Amino acid sequence: MRNQTLLLVLSLMFFSLQAQEHSHMGAQPLSYPDVDGYKTLKVDLHMHTVFSDGNVWPTIRVHEALRENLDAISLTEHLEYQPHAEDIPHPDRNRSYELVTAMKEAEEHGLLIVHGSEITRSAPIGHNNAVFIEDANKLVQEKAEKAFSEAKKQKAFVFWNHPAWYAQMPQGNPVLSDFQKERIKNDELHGIEVINTGDYAEESLALALENNLTIMGTSDIHGLIDWDYTEKGHHRPITLVFAKEKSKESLQEALFEGRTVAVYNDLLVGREPYLTPLLKASIEISGVKYIDKTQILEVELTNVSSSDLLFENQMNYTFYSSSPVFEIKAGETKKLMIKTLEAKQNITLKLKALGCYIAPKVHPIIEWNLNVR
Amino acid sequence: MRNQTLLLVLSLMFFSLQAQEHSHMGAQPLSYPDVDGYKTLKVDLHMHTVFSDGNVWPTIRVHEALRENLDAISLTEHLEYQPHAEDIPHPDRNRSYELVTAMKEAEEHGLLIVHGSEITRSAPIGHNNAVFIEDANKLVQEKAEKAFSEAKKQKAFVFWNHPAWYAQMPQGNPVLSDFQKERIKNDELHGIEVINTGDYAEESLALALENNLTIMGTSDIHGLIDWDYTEKGHHRPITLVFAKEKSKESLQEALFEGRTVAVYNDLLVGREPYLTPLLKASIEISGVKYIDKTQILEVELTNVSSSDLLFENQMNYTFYSSSPVFEIKAGETKKLMIKTLEAKQNITLKLKALGCYIAPKVHPIIEWNLNVR
Amino acid sequence: MRNQTLLLVLSLMFFSLQAQEHSHMGAQPLSYPDVDGYKTLKVDLHMHTVFSDGNVWPTIRVHEALRENLDAISLTEHLEYQPHAEDIPHPDRNRSYELVTAMKEAEEHGLLIVHGSEITRSAPIGHNNAVFIEDANKLVQEKAEKAFSEAKKQKAFVFWNHPAWYAQMPQGNPVLSDFQKERIKNDELHGIEVINTGDYAEESLALALENNLTIMGTSDIHGLIDWDYTEKGHHRPITLVFAKEKSKESLQEALFEGRTVAVYNDLLVGREPYLTPLLKASIEISGVKYIDKTQILEVELTNVSSSDLLFENQMNYTFYSSSPVFEIKAGETKKLMIKTLEAKQNITLKLKALGCYIAPKVHPIIEWNLNVR
Amino acid sequence: MRNQTLLLVLSLMFFSLQAQEHSHMGAQPLSYPDVDGYKTLKVDLHMHTVFSDGNVWPTIRVHEALRENLDAISLTEHLEYQPHAEDIPHPDRNRSYELVTAMKEAEEHGLLIVHGSEITRSAPIGHNNAVFIEDANKLVQEKAEKAFSEAKKQKAFVFWNHPAWYAQMPQGNPVLSDFQKERIKNDELHGIEVINTGDYAEESLALALENNLTIMGTSDIHGLIDWDYTEKGHHRPITLVFAKEKSKESLQEALFEGRTVAVYNDLLVGREPYLTPLLKASIEISGVKYIDKTQILEVELTNVSSSDLLFENQMNYTFYSSSPVFEIKAGETKKLMIKTLEAKQNITLKLKALGCYIAPKVHPIIEWNLNVR
Repeated sequence: MRNQTLLLVLSLMFFSLQAQEHSHMGAQPLSYPDVDGYKTLKVDLHMHTVFSDGNVWPTIRVHEALRENLDAISLTEHLEYQPHAEDIPHPDRNRSYELVTAMKEAEEHGLLIVHGSEITRSAPIGHNNAVFIEDANKLVQEKAEKAFSEAKKQKAFVFWNHPAWYAQMPQGNPVLSDFQKERIKNDELHGIEVINTGDYAEESLALALENNLTIMGTSDIHGLIDWDYTEKGHHRPITLVFAKEKSKESLQEALFEGRTVAVYNDLLVGREPYLTPLLKASIEISGVKYIDKTQILEVELTNVSSSDLLFENQMNYTFYSSSPVFEIKAGETKKLMIKTLEAKQNITLKLKALGCYIAPKVHPIIEWNLNVR
Repeated sequence: MRNQTLLLVLSLMFFSLQAQEHSHMGAQPLSYPDVDGYKTLKVDLHMHTVFSDGNVWPTIRVHEALRENLDAISLTEHLEYQPHAEDIPHPDRNRSYELVTAMKEAEEHGLLIVHGSEITRSAPIGHNNAVFIEDANKLVQEKAEKAFSEAKKQKAFVFWNHPAWYAQMPQGNPVLSDFQKERIKNDELHGIEVINTGDYAEESLALALENNLTIMGTSDIHGLIDWDYTEKGHHRPITLVFAKEKSKESLQEALFEGRTVAVYNDLLVGREPYLTPLLKASIEISGVKYIDKTQILEVELTNVSSSDLLFENQMNYTFYSSSPVFEIKAGETKKLMIKTLEAKQNITLKLKALGCYIAPKVHPIIEWNLNVR
Repeated sequence: MRNQTLLLVLSLMFFSLQAQEHSHMGAQPLSYPDVDGYKTLKVDLHMHTVFSDGNVWPTIRVHEALRENLDAISLTEHLEYQPHAEDIPHPDRNRSYELVTAMKEAEEHGLLIVHGSEITRSAPIGHNNAVFIEDANKLVQEKAEKAFSEAKKQKAFVFWNHPAWYAQMPQGNPVLSDFQKERIKNDELHGIEVINTGDYAEESLALALENNLTIMGTSDIHGLIDWDYTEKGHHRPITLVFAKEKSKESLQEALFEGRTVAVYNDLLVGREPYLTPLLKASIEISGVKYIDKTQILEVELTNVSSSDLLFENQMNYTFYSSSPVFEIKAGETKKLMIKTLEAKQNITLKLKALGCYIAPKVHPIIEWNLNVR
Repeated sequence: MRNQTLLLVLSLMFFSLQAQEHSHMGAQPLSYPDVDGYKTLKVDLHMHTVFSDGNVWPTIRVHEALRENLDAISLTEHLEYQPHAEDIPHPDRNRSYELVTAMKEAEEHGLLIVHGSEITRSAPIGHNNAVFIEDANKLVQEKAEKAFSEAKKQKAFVFWNHPAWYAQMPQGNPVLSDFQKERIKNDELHGIEVINTGDYAEESLALALENNLTIMGTSDIHGLIDWDYTEKGHHRPITLVFAKEKSKESLQEALFEGRTVAVYNDLLVGREPYLTPLLKASIEISGVKYIDKTQILEVELTNVSSSDLLFENQMNYTFYSSSPVFEIKAGETKKLMIKTLEAKQNITLKLKALGCYIAPKVHPIIEWNLNVR
């Protein structure tokens, strides 16, 4: 009986290993745990297609999103920058949105399509995405102020794109202009990209915290997700949004409330009240027990998120057989052995998350209670 | 001194292995040896973009071709099937061609852009590509016969697409209709796809040989090369064309003369006078010598093509330490040890190429002279 | 609900892919299907340890065997060649066997330990393994004839090792000497290694068939299985033995009866009555159905063996979207689409197994009935 | 001409990728840069064979060391623990050393074989290795004190093995006993294992720093390096020794002088004067230049060591397109873009090495001058 089970396990292992060996992977699905009664939605609200300066038909964006298991996307075509206008003279700025909302694949897999547009100006106004809009055409305005006030009228959630983009900020240091200050004061600017493409800007995080702006992460994809990210071993940047349920309304509410974490591979950036619970839920604890005849406590940590997580020991106790700095790859389990010195029944595991930020240069510290059986 | 060299080799090995370990590959460049004074051009003459029923902007096709190191491509938009016409109402059927010829990347890397179009009808006429055309608009004709005669007037090379496509041939068995017979008689049909997408049709090869049609292999790509081929571990099907030089004129001449081999990964299909020399050149011989004090002859075979090649021993002599059926992966070297029994100075290595066809069910047999030093 | 399942599948896929990426594999377990009421035992009856000219303590051989999921092994130390005698002067030739029979790991996992020894002489007698012996010491005899008659007395199964080994057969062509002929006549020689280390000798297969000898495959390992095989992407050669049950008695009976197939990775060599059913059982058929509105029959073939299998179409019908020569990797599934031309309810799938031999240069042909649902 | 070069590069890339895909790697060679006029020797001075409680013949240890490109090893058989004595009754405790010194492979590749033994007692004396001894037999003494004084007489370098081993320290917290204090006072104990097998003990590092003991890292291998380390993606723990030249004398001098860093994969532990220069030399700087029209400075960092290195930004300047915490894999290059704000000609790159320790919980900070061309 026992041998039967072993054989089965061995066989399964064998087959999965064989299968793996010559697969060439495309983008893999992302997964993050829900936290504190919220659904954790994986969202990319900044992308382009042939309907502005992108290179693919809108349907490709839906297929890409389904491959990475996203919950919501928005095609945010530049309202003012239309390099393909000679071939695609369509005057309706809602066209790209309409084409993808008609796709049965999006509906079948529950992918939410958010109506959005990019209001595109030179510095200091810069680029700004308005999402959850009703009619993109009405946002086409000569004066930027008008575009923002129209977005507000449509109840759009508006965020400042790539404030640290060096084409617009050559010294690399984004600062709020009077225009942005005015928009924030008028409740016309609600968020800021802290991660855009591969760039995490600490200065943008500082601006978010100082001005109560929602922290955003987006791909800003123009070409192919596979060429820009997947084949380099990366996932696109996304925003994790903690929503009351998986719906456009809940997503919009959560964005206005600032319940987000920006993610790019193993880098997670968010306000402490959202990032800390996410990390705590990302590690599942099991197998807590003392090694026989010792005061060494074993515990197994399983990373159920799609980000490899890097930790440093913050306890007074040291580890047996593990460096104080250690990584738990996405989906993998790490066994820690803690030299408790006195074999207590309750130990608090305390780790600093080195790849994560709750403020510029500040890592969150996470605690888990270990109850010995 | 010797240790220095060893260390260097070890270090290089180490670095390349490390580097490899976490790369996620996109499409890899293809390479095939030149033969008999001809340049071996890697060609895909059947593909689509948003200008017919494809899903990408034409520039993506150029980037995809450069990644696979192709020498020539043609964007063969359907003349008659235009599902994106509402958004791309451009009446000029040459537009897709014009957009890519303007790209500096194509010119910089020497990628030849061939002007082509797909004449698209229901069975029995079916789909046919005309390449090396001058003006696609003139091929838009109500009667198919007119389209073909116009193509001939433009000196186009015309080939029948996917004759075994089951949507048009539900019993799976392509047969020449009176229409095709007439076109061949009129010198208006010159080639036939023997490999389209993933399908090698033996019946199409038979038609090619019986009717003196050029053997073609094409991708017929509509979506992304990476999704349809690369991430499954495949390359797109291509045609190898043996041209006097790398130019559009030479390519056209070679196609009309039938100097081709259709390739899909490890499957090579072509007329014997072209496939046999290609295979012979694909294996480089080295290290021919007898094992000391034995009649066993060692020889190293290096596969310099991008196709894994599968061989079976056809000699009277058997191998030491190798199965009679063996594969040499693309770019790799296999050492054979031949039990010659009598230690002669000249041995003819004779192998059947199991993955290759010169006629339905017929594999080519290749011979190499092994001169013992 | 449906999305839940999809998510689960995606997550599992993701985790297994992630896990895979940075594992460095050791030897993987082997698995072959049972056939015709016989248990298919995976057996290696030729190996060495420090107790003759090997480089590991006997326990390592048990761990290596468990890693590859073998069912039986024999430590066949050279009786006459003892290079470590200065350090290991033990006069008892049964010592190596005793050490491993005492291991609880072997018993726990059901690994059968067969008592064996290698009778080691120069050509033409050569090397011969006697397995299922009772006392190795009694086989130490000055005259080889005496050693063989003692082995017979102990009811040992005796096989000729590596007849094509070029150190003893420099022309590469094994021939039966009078000594071997005499042993066969006396029922003192029952088998012959057709595969030893990496060498498959067609001539040895011919000798097996002509003289009614059992076909054997063995590793003849002296160093580490991982260094000689695993890290090159190989498994050691083994003998598959079709036994009435998993026991030493049944194994011995099956060897005397010649119910074996020698296996080295993807090369399988055996008598037709045993190799053909093994291959038939190695492919599981599923999903037999016609593609809607066509005469094209789909069928899925799953290779449940640990050998990649290479087939060539032997039917009158051709394939849609597959080369006539195709491989099904161990543990993987291949979908064939057969152009049946007339949509019959019963089709016989008929494939030649190109990597397998039932006689020198002769491949088995396997048939499966496809019943359309 | 340009295309020729491109083609060559593409082909090489292709071939190396192909080759990679189906290799199954064994242990890879280790490489670390020389520093400050010292040769950096890669050394493992704690291992076992069948001559004590190991499971391989001594020659295997040499082959394993050559595979990992080590510079020196010592077979430190237990003097007092001889579980194979029944089969290997050899009374000479130098035998294991003699067998490997006779190997031509060690000499050919310049592998230094250090004569050593393990003095094996229960707690609090524990296990201690004496290396650079002359005669192991003389160390076999009833009283531990005698063994240590004999080792001193032979000018041996002696280190305390795995002080945190929980079988001897169940509370996990190694403390110096009177015995050790006495040995240190008598100059009979010179080093301490800070890394043994997979265990880095911070407490042992503290003891090393407090008592001026040399920091050691060793494998303590009993089975196979591949099974315990390689197939899990690890290298064995080693000691890097900074020696005046590659010779046994220089190695011995450097150990007595405490010029070492203990290494286990990506964990490096050493005194600041040795670890900091090693890390500085492990990163090669190139490509320092400002991005056109910006104040963003580009710099390429190449990790020429065999350890993946983990850094955190310690500058006032932030990065463009990189997290403040980042890894540079062994052998790989990382491009940083530094937002200098004012485009100075000299910038000091300042990074904390998160995976490295110069004292318990203390990471070294490394500085590199970046001179803009």
